[in-house]
Amino acid sequence: MTPATASPSLALPPRPSEVALEALIGELAPRLGERITTARGVRDQHGHDESWHHPGAPDAVCFPHTTEEVAAVVTACARHRVPVIPYGVGTSIEGQVIAEHGGLCVDLSAMNAILAVRPEDMDATVQPGVTRTQLNTHLRASGLFFSVDPGADASMGGMASTRASGTNTVRYGTIRENVLAMTVVMPDGRIVKTGSRARKSAAGYDLTHLMIGAEGTLGIITELTVRLHGLPEAVSAATVAFEDVAGAVDTVIASIQYGIPMARIELMDALAMRAVNRFSHLDYAEKPTLFLEFHGTHAGVKEQAESMAALCQEFGGSDFAWATKEEARSALWQARHDAAYAAKALRPGAEFLATDICVPISELAACIEATQADVAASGLIAPLLGHVGDGNFHLVVAVDRESPEELETLAAFNRRLIERALAAGGTCTGEHGIGSGKRGYMEAEHGEGWAVMRTLKAALDPLGIMNPGKLV
Amino acid sequence: MTPATASPSLALPPRPSEVALEALIGELAPRLGERITTARGVRDQHGHDESWHHPGAPDAVCFPHTTEEVAAVVTACARHRVPVIPYGVGTSIEGQVIAEHGGLCVDLSAMNAILAVRPEDMDATVQPGVTRTQLNTHLRASGLFFSVDPGADASMGGMASTRASGTNTVRYGTIRENVLAMTVVMPDGRIVKTGSRARKSAAGYDLTHLMIGAEGTLGIITELTVRLHGLPEAVSAATVAFEDVAGAVDTVIASIQYGIPMARIELMDALAMRAVNRFSHLDYAEKPTLFLEFHGTHAGVKEQAESMAALCQEFGGSDFAWATKEEARSALWQARHDAAYAAKALRPGAEFLATDICVPISELAACIEATQADVAASGLIAPLLGHVGDGNFHLVVAVDRESPEELETLAAFNRRLIERALAAGGTCTGEHGIGSGKRGYMEAEHGEGWAVMRTLKAALDPLGIMNPGKLV
Repeated sequence: MTPATASPSLALPPRPSEVALEALIGELAPRLGERITTARGVRDQHGHDESWHHPGAPDAVCFPHTTEEVAAVVTACARHRVPVIPYGVGTSIEGQVIAEHGGLCVDLSAMNAILAVRPEDMDATVQPGVTRTQLNTHLRASGLFFSVDPGADASMGGMASTRASGTNTVRYGTIRENVLAMTVVMPDGRIVKTGSRARKSAAGYDLTHLMIGAEGTLGIITELTVRLHGLPEAVSAATVAFEDVAGAVDTVIASIQYGIPMARIELMDALAMRAVNRFSHLDYAEKPTLFLEFHGTHAGVKEQAESMAALCQEFGGSDFAWATKEEARSALWQARHDAAYAAKALRPGAEFLATDICVPISELAACIEATQADVAASGLIAPLLGHVGDGNFHLVVAVDRESPEELETLAAFNRRLIERALAAGGTCTGEHGIGSGKRGYMEAEHGEGWAVMRTLKAALDPLGIMNPGKLV
Repeated sequence: MTPATASPSLALPPRPSEVALEALIGELAPRLGERITTARGVRDQHGHDESWHHPGAPDAVCFPHTTEEVAAVVTACARHRVPVIPYGVGTSIEGQVIAEHGGLCVDLSAMNAILAVRPEDMDATVQPGVTRTQLNTHLRASGLFFSVDPGADASMGGMASTRASGTNTVRYGTIRENVLAMTVVMPDGRIVKTGSRARKSAAGYDLTHLMIGAEGTLGIITELTVRLHGLPEAVSAATVAFEDVAGAVDTVIASIQYGIPMARIELMDALAMRAVNRFSHLDYAEKPTLFLEFHGTHAGVKEQAESMAALCQEFGGSDFAWATKEEARSALWQARHDAAYAAKALRPGAEFLATDICVPISELAACIEATQADVAASGLIAPLLGHVGDGNFHLVVAVDRESPEELETLAAFNRRLIERALAAGGTCTGEHGIGSGKRGYMEAEHGEGWAVMRTLKAALDPLGIMNPGKLV
């Protein structure tokens, strides 16, 4: 018996042979018909995500309609030792869906049924290809909403697989806190149901949370039951500018300690504000700025907003702009949501690395300031955006892909950024995930825990066919 | 390579031989001195928890002071194939700490240092033997508190290991939502750090949540970083009686849908109220009763209480009793906290089975009514208490242990209770855990997931030494 101590050397299947692929497709074609294809265009379309990582097309793509079809596909892939790459809508940003080792891409976008909405239990059961806006559009009349919002209109399966979060995590949690139960097709084709619709359970190992964030390396999620939240009676939003990042972050720390239940607390640095002004023809102060949102009753929102305004003033906030009407709020948040595009417009023609780290909030101001100094010293153009209530921030870094020097500068900058996060007791990614982009930092972050993760992978996917080369 | 499909047959070590025990103790004694013992009294004291399950004393007990000592102990146990049973303060109620297969009990109560409290980050790092009241006493001056409250003054390591929750879960979450990071000694003695102090991370498999609820079968928790919450500015509590359970549950469902952020919503049935009246000389209406608590600003609490009062009336609530002063609130909650003792006083001399299930809240009223009918038909004395905001309820069932008929009646009743929970889409335990008491229901609840859990156990604890016979 191998002791668990050893970090197992994981099986990494070679690119599948022509023979294996032909056998696989021959086996699946009678069941899937035109829903399995090796057409070049379809393969290329599935070979990249929204990251800057090098594309890698799968050898074939299939479009299952049911959990049982996914199980049949995975079983066949296991038999023929062909890699399986789950694919939602392709909005990942660390290369999670790139077929580095070839194989069969399992596109789940056709599995997009909303199976049940239960207002009494405030939950919904959906297929993995449902996107968050699709679900929220469906919920509109119910007075309920699904809270996780990573920016992109990601699929539910993809968000669970990458442990997504977003702007309102500070109030409603990440996807981790919002999934109650899942159906997962395991690497050997078994269909497993994790969790239950009960709000809590002490019955056994937490398979739901093991699958969340596993990036398809332990199985394919084919159904999810997620928590819903009540739409607030009243919503109010505001922007506040600060002289420096420390003032903004101190305001956030104080607001959390005072228990102001803010729904969103976003930070954009001066360069990000300049980018937004230019991109959207706005006239915000080009200073570190907090974007705030309050949810509650009319009286509650008013009270929250007043408490927050007092705190902001205490820490040097100015240029308050309030928005209570929906139109004004939409305009305000549009500026925040356009920030990535605005950042890209700062250097037309360049490509962009989107990266994120997360640190304890007490370390955030120092970490941001050190990072901004590093940006300046490196000669990079890199506006900074943060889910500052979680200690999480992003950089959108422009790069000329044709310039080896720039690529090297960027890689070194990213490495220092991650080292800074780890030194501050944080993590190399708050919400973008590992994919192939940050695999090299897993050992530095997790130490012996990295070996434990590899042991889990080897135990559940002994053939190494599930999204090989990602995460572990 | 064994496919993961097979449900592995787990190694269950035989009771350790005299030779193995002597060798183990001979190896550890130079390091631990008097902190490892085979004294009968100490062994007996560690052979039971607060459950009614048959005691089973370990062969020896040790009292480590550091993570490194725990690692040395586990390494030696692995070498000599001696079972390891982690022990906090012994308040589990499904037999989690009983040494069914003998072995070495690792009593962590001496590891009770509060290592750090960080108000800015609203977190604390503690050793596993710290109890929740110890931590909250320590925090008193900080304006912060640790929220998880399972009733008993359990240890932090024990609460994490059994995935504990309690009365204020509906607002602040279970221990699952309140642990950020842990240090764990793995079954081979390796020391692993899981998670980080960052509020969120998308970096790899969620080892923290894998260890939470694992009941010591995958390792020993030797350090925890937990979330803290701000003490509310104002607190208000109330009791409200209803004509039937459905009225009470419908009120709770409506309050959650309306987004009233209640801190506690507890239900006691008519028999539980009668028990409390008798035990504590009170004069509550002997009807299904909700115990409510509101946390927030003064204005916010007033608004919540008014909204809730209106809802209660709509669903037939009466006999409102409000308590805003601390003394009155304490008296109110004392009645709830004494409920288990009060229940036991209903049948002096009897022993008691404490059991719990959890269902989707839409199923709760029907599930409680069916259970009460079953209690009556079975001739049992079994008051019912519920964390009704979570869909979780407990029964405290009196039993004469000397009567085989009663034991059989009780076992059959408990089985029907669990089957009812599973049929309603729930779980066989919301917060008590599996231990040895509910192991027999794991396959019924999890199906193929049960095999996956066994695969994980076999991968991480191939020798099967960690708390054998529990959970898996």
